[in-house]
Amino acid sequence: MDKLNIKLEKNTGKALYVQLYNQIRKMILENTLKPHSKLPPIRKLASELEVNNVTIVNAYKLLEENDFVYKKVGSGTFIKDNHMLDKEYDSSKLQNYKPIVYNFASTTPTSDLFPVEDFKVVINSVLNRDKGGAFIYQHSQGFESLRISIKKFLYKSKIFTDIDNIHIVSGAQQGIDIISKALVNYGDIVFCESPTYGGAIAAFKSRGAKIIDINLENDGLDMRTLENKLLNFKPQFIYVMPNFQNPTGISYSIQKRKQLIDLAKKYDTYIVEDDYVREINYNDNNILPIKSMDTNNRVIYIKSFSKTLMPGLRLGFTIIPLKIYSDVLTAKQTSDISTSALIQRCFDLYLRKGLWEKHIQNMNEIYSLRYNTMIKSLKKYMPKEIQYNIPYGGLGFWFALPEGFSSIKLHDLCINNDISIVSGSNFYVNKQDSNNFRLSIASISENLIEEGIAKLSKIISDFLQNPNNQYINNDTSLSFF
Amino acid sequence: MDKLNIKLEKNTGKALYVQLYNQIRKMILENTLKPHSKLPPIRKLASELEVNNVTIVNAYKLLEENDFVYKKVGSGTFIKDNHMLDKEYDSSKLQNYKPIVYNFASTTPTSDLFPVEDFKVVINSVLNRDKGGAFIYQHSQGFESLRISIKKFLYKSKIFTDIDNIHIVSGAQQGIDIISKALVNYGDIVFCESPTYGGAIAAFKSRGAKIIDINLENDGLDMRTLENKLLNFKPQFIYVMPNFQNPTGISYSIQKRKQLIDLAKKYDTYIVEDDYVREINYNDNNILPIKSMDTNNRVIYIKSFSKTLMPGLRLGFTIIPLKIYSDVLTAKQTSDISTSALIQRCFDLYLRKGLWEKHIQNMNEIYSLRYNTMIKSLKKYMPKEIQYNIPYGGLGFWFALPEGFSSIKLHDLCINNDISIVSGSNFYVNKQDSNNFRLSIASISENLIEEGIAKLSKIISDFLQNPNNQYINNDTSLSFF
Repeated sequence: MDKLNIKLEKNTGKALYVQLYNQIRKMILENTLKPHSKLPPIRKLASELEVNNVTIVNAYKLLEENDFVYKKVGSGTFIKDNHMLDKEYDSSKLQNYKPIVYNFASTTPTSDLFPVEDFKVVINSVLNRDKGGAFIYQHSQGFESLRISIKKFLYKSKIFTDIDNIHIVSGAQQGIDIISKALVNYGDIVFCESPTYGGAIAAFKSRGAKIIDINLENDGLDMRTLENKLLNFKPQFIYVMPNFQNPTGISYSIQKRKQLIDLAKKYDTYIVEDDYVREINYNDNNILPIKSMDTNNRVIYIKSFSKTLMPGLRLGFTIIPLKIYSDVLTAKQTSDISTSALIQRCFDLYLRKGLWEKHIQNMNEIYSLRYNTMIKSLKKYMPKEIQYNIPYGGLGFWFALPEGFSSIKLHDLCINNDISIVSGSNFYVNKQDSNNFRLSIASISENLIEEGIAKLSKIISDFLQNPNNQYINNDTSLSFF
Repeated sequence: MDKLNIKLEKNTGKALYVQLYNQIRKMILENTLKPHSKLPPIRKLASELEVNNVTIVNAYKLLEENDFVYKKVGSGTFIKDNHMLDKEYDSSKLQNYKPIVYNFASTTPTSDLFPVEDFKVVINSVLNRDKGGAFIYQHSQGFESLRISIKKFLYKSKIFTDIDNIHIVSGAQQGIDIISKALVNYGDIVFCESPTYGGAIAAFKSRGAKIIDINLENDGLDMRTLENKLLNFKPQFIYVMPNFQNPTGISYSIQKRKQLIDLAKKYDTYIVEDDYVREINYNDNNILPIKSMDTNNRVIYIKSFSKTLMPGLRLGFTIIPLKIYSDVLTAKQTSDISTSALIQRCFDLYLRKGLWEKHIQNMNEIYSLRYNTMIKSLKKYMPKEIQYNIPYGGLGFWFALPEGFSSIKLHDLCINNDISIVSGSNFYVNKQDSNNFRLSIASISENLIEEGIAKLSKIISDFLQNPNNQYINNDTSLSFF
């Protein structure tokens, strides 16, 4: 193939991969790029355009997602002969969409694990039952029937709250955003774990918060530093993920859970507990949320169903102390008025029919197999220089390269080998790079794990031998989820 | 009935009507309030508890919405004999839910106007076609196929934009919120119309913006004041609703539209055009959005489908200049990552099947009948002291009581007579009260309009005679939509 006539503008504020996507898409539509012709290899195009490999990968991923190209494993990316434009959308290929062979990056389940048939039955029941009612403005706090279902859903987590405290949100990210809107104004202080979820950092920054991050140890926050900081600063809240933390996978000890609640009371602040993927648990140990120990209304609780059910639902809930009820409700109203009535009603019925328990059991079985294969593979292949913990639940594993090695460089090397990982730099408030990285078993099927870890381990070994690498990561704007 | 044992706490931050709702609900659940017994009349309970009538109305409304009570017109509110708790939710009554007989307040269509059957077909087509794909994380900018449909949808509004500029949002309120997040930081300046949409004011305030409101004349903003302000302040944008404005119903003259675009260019700022309900048009006059005249990428465009299709969909879109593409995308990601994949795919198919045009035609026919009855009734009954304009499209009519008369007091008088209106105080940045009020024809059926306007006119006549009234409005937190 001839060299493509592409020009990327680097300081327009528009992501490079989107520019690239658009230009290639245009060439396909104008028939400058013919059906079944091959797109340039990632490395080659990256070097021609003087951009990071990830830029090319992301652009090709978007092209594939939107049905302009297809991939042949081992031979490259090719133009489709009829693309979707001006036809009715046909997503049959999207189901099998695998942008990267060894996807250790994503923390959301793949669509083959979604309980689509169950949900279809539920949707039709709701439409037959509620008719137009399924499409009204639901009250901003959420559909009361769903809040009753959630109240009961919480019993087995030993949380006994009233439906007045439960607020429906469009996913955990919106929960974080709304709580920030309600409690954080410009210049206010927020404490968080280091490392922590990048989407939370972004939401706090958007409120103009001063963020103080506190080091995470193997059994929870460094409590001495925390109390020290509390003596000097008054945070609006302390944002934590005590159960299978993202990204580290660690869980807090009982002692640190108690300490955290005591400190919140002593220093008159809130704990925001993001109860991430506690349901995915490979041990009998029944780990409970901190909220279950909260006798003083110090814990604001956030729960998403995206990671364990279907991300596209956009549904979650928060538990909010009555003292900040109005602020939170107003924040929800100014955000999007209310969450989809249809989705709330469907999920309510889904819970009431007991389908959630069935689904979680199924997910645990599938993930257990992956988890065991993952541990076996790590023990077998991972170079001894690499440190990591084995979590007893959740989806993520957290690794450390030796000090001074860049996980961003490692990420780029992996992408070139059809492996995706997430660089630790996405999880810190201030660090531009990090020697840490995260692997997840959410999106990789069991049969690819050993192969993937073997390849990754080989890449890491080579990287440890020869850490000099030309790539600079400058296009990770979409990677923090 | 004996006096109810209710205690409301006035300074807890929790809305009084929610407290009241909870206490009555508890009495029903504990069987302290027996089935078919009558709740106290609104005025009586309000006076006992020393609260505003609206508080009681809102609490009773919530009780009815959640199936604890039923209403008999003319005789009062009664306890149901089997409430929903612990049963599968039965919303059959919710369809007919009419909290107020003469609802001139709401600007969203009632559920009987929703194209539920068409949408059900579309949902099942999407589920059969996309399966798990209907529940993936959609790209934050939105499903490309839907963006293509919207691109074409915009042709008849003479907007020719690229799909790269189109961003899907979860309704217009989120559009306003995201644009504010992308462009407004603490202390930044925003210009808006006076009066304007209260939900926009709330979003700007949440960003810590300094809001400068500019008087709206019958043909658009007061341009002399606008230019004067532009000489002294540099706003991030000017938020306007040029077509059937909310709440006034006015539309901008062609001349003022051109001036607005010229001024945005001259003073290097953006116009945020909230294209409210332009599709509802009772004249042949084909009114176009300002965006159609925008040759310099100065107009950011927001369009909701809530007001004209089904509010519970939570779907809309924005048109965003590429210069701020990344900021807007990041704001969407930190808000809720992406809009429901299922809803996006369904609405895409709905547009592609031509169902939208059919629906809008239907809505126009229904609303035309209401509009004509409204005008006839206003001419027949409304006291001559009341000033109002007749808009040639949209859903709202804007009225002025003589100077010094409180529309909040009028609102409370109306509620006591089963009529809801919206006080003008919801639409100003700084005013605590206002002599203006808004009536809408979105939620009142044609056969109730004449009766409602006759009753309202009588109330207004009495009010003009005797403006002293004990009620103080302190519980309107949910009323700005």
